[in-house]
Amino acid sequence: MTDPNDFQLHPDLERDGVPLGSFALCRVLLLDDANYPWFVLVPARPEIVELTDLSAVDYTQLWQESRAFCSFLQSAFTPDKLNVATLGNMTPQLHVHHVVRYRNDAAWPKPIWGAVPAKRYHTEAIETIREQLAIGKTNGFSPA
Amino acid sequence: MTDPNDFQLHPDLERDGVPLGSFALCRVLLLDDANYPWFVLVPARPEIVELTDLSAVDYTQLWQESRAFCSFLQSAFTPDKLNVATLGNMTPQLHVHHVVRYRNDAAWPKPIWGAVPAKRYHTEAIETIREQLAIGKTNGFSPA
Repeated sequence: MTDPNDFQLHPDLERDGVPLGSFALCRVLLLDDANYPWFVLVPARPEIVELTDLSAVDYTQLWQESRAFCSFLQSAFTPDKLNVATLGNMTPQLHVHHVVRYRNDAAWPKPIWGAVPAKRYHTEAIETIREQLAIGKTNGFSPA
Repeated sequence: MTDPNDFQLHPDLERDGVPLGSFALCRVLLLDDANYPWFVLVPARPEIVELTDLSAVDYTQLWQESRAFCSFLQSAFTPDKLNVATLGNMTPQLHVHHVVRYRNDAAWPKPIWGAVPAKRYHTEAIETIREQLAIGKTNGFSPA
C-alpha cells in the first residue's frame, strides 16, 4: 500500500509548470507557453500512470474537478474549443491537459503538442492568469 | 429541450469509423487506421460539443464507460500507454479518443493526430478486433 502523502510532482511537470493551486485531489499547473492558456490537472497520488490506476473514488473526483475546471475556463477565457487529454507518452505521471483553443491560435485546428515552439510568459501575464483563477474558489479550488 | 432520440453520428465519424457496438450512453467506433488500435466513444446525445454540455448524469456515465473501455483495452492489447483525449477542433460532435500506444508504433512518443498517413485495415483485421471486443460484454458493452 502506497502512502498518499508520498506524492511528488514529476520533475518534467515541476520544470514546465507554474503551480496555481489545488482542488481536493488535483494540483493545477499552468504550462509556461503563452501560445495557449494551457493547464494540467495532476492527481496528487503517488505512482499513478494510467487513469485506471486511480481508485474508483479518486477517478470520479478527478473528472468532477476537471468538469469544474472546464466550466471555469469557459467563463474566464471563452474558448472556441476546449481540448482535454491525457497522453503521458513522455512524462509518465498521470496529468490531464486542459487547453483553451481559439480559431486564431498558433496551432489551430491541429493539436498543440509539438506544433509550435513554446513562448514564455512575462511574469505579469502569469499574475493576470492567477487573478482570473481566483474565480475558481467557488468550485473547491484553493489558490497556491 | 432536445430529444435524445435525435442523435445522429457526425458525417466525419460516420465516414472514418467502423461501428463496433454501444455502451448504455456511448457508441464505440474503431477508426480505420491500422497504425494503432484507435477507438472513439461518442455519447449518443444530440448537440453535444463540449464535455460540459453533457448533463451531470451523462458526464459521469461517459467516464464510467471510458474507464470500463480502458480496462478492456489493457486486457486485450497490453498497451505501453493509453491516450485518452477529446479535441474536436475539426469534428465538433463530442467524441473521446481512446488510443492504444506502443513504444514501437508509427508516431511514438508523439500524439497520433496527423503524425503519419492512415493505413487502412484489411477486413479480416477488423473482424479480429470485433472478436477481441466480445470480451467487453461483461462491462455493459453490446456488440454491433
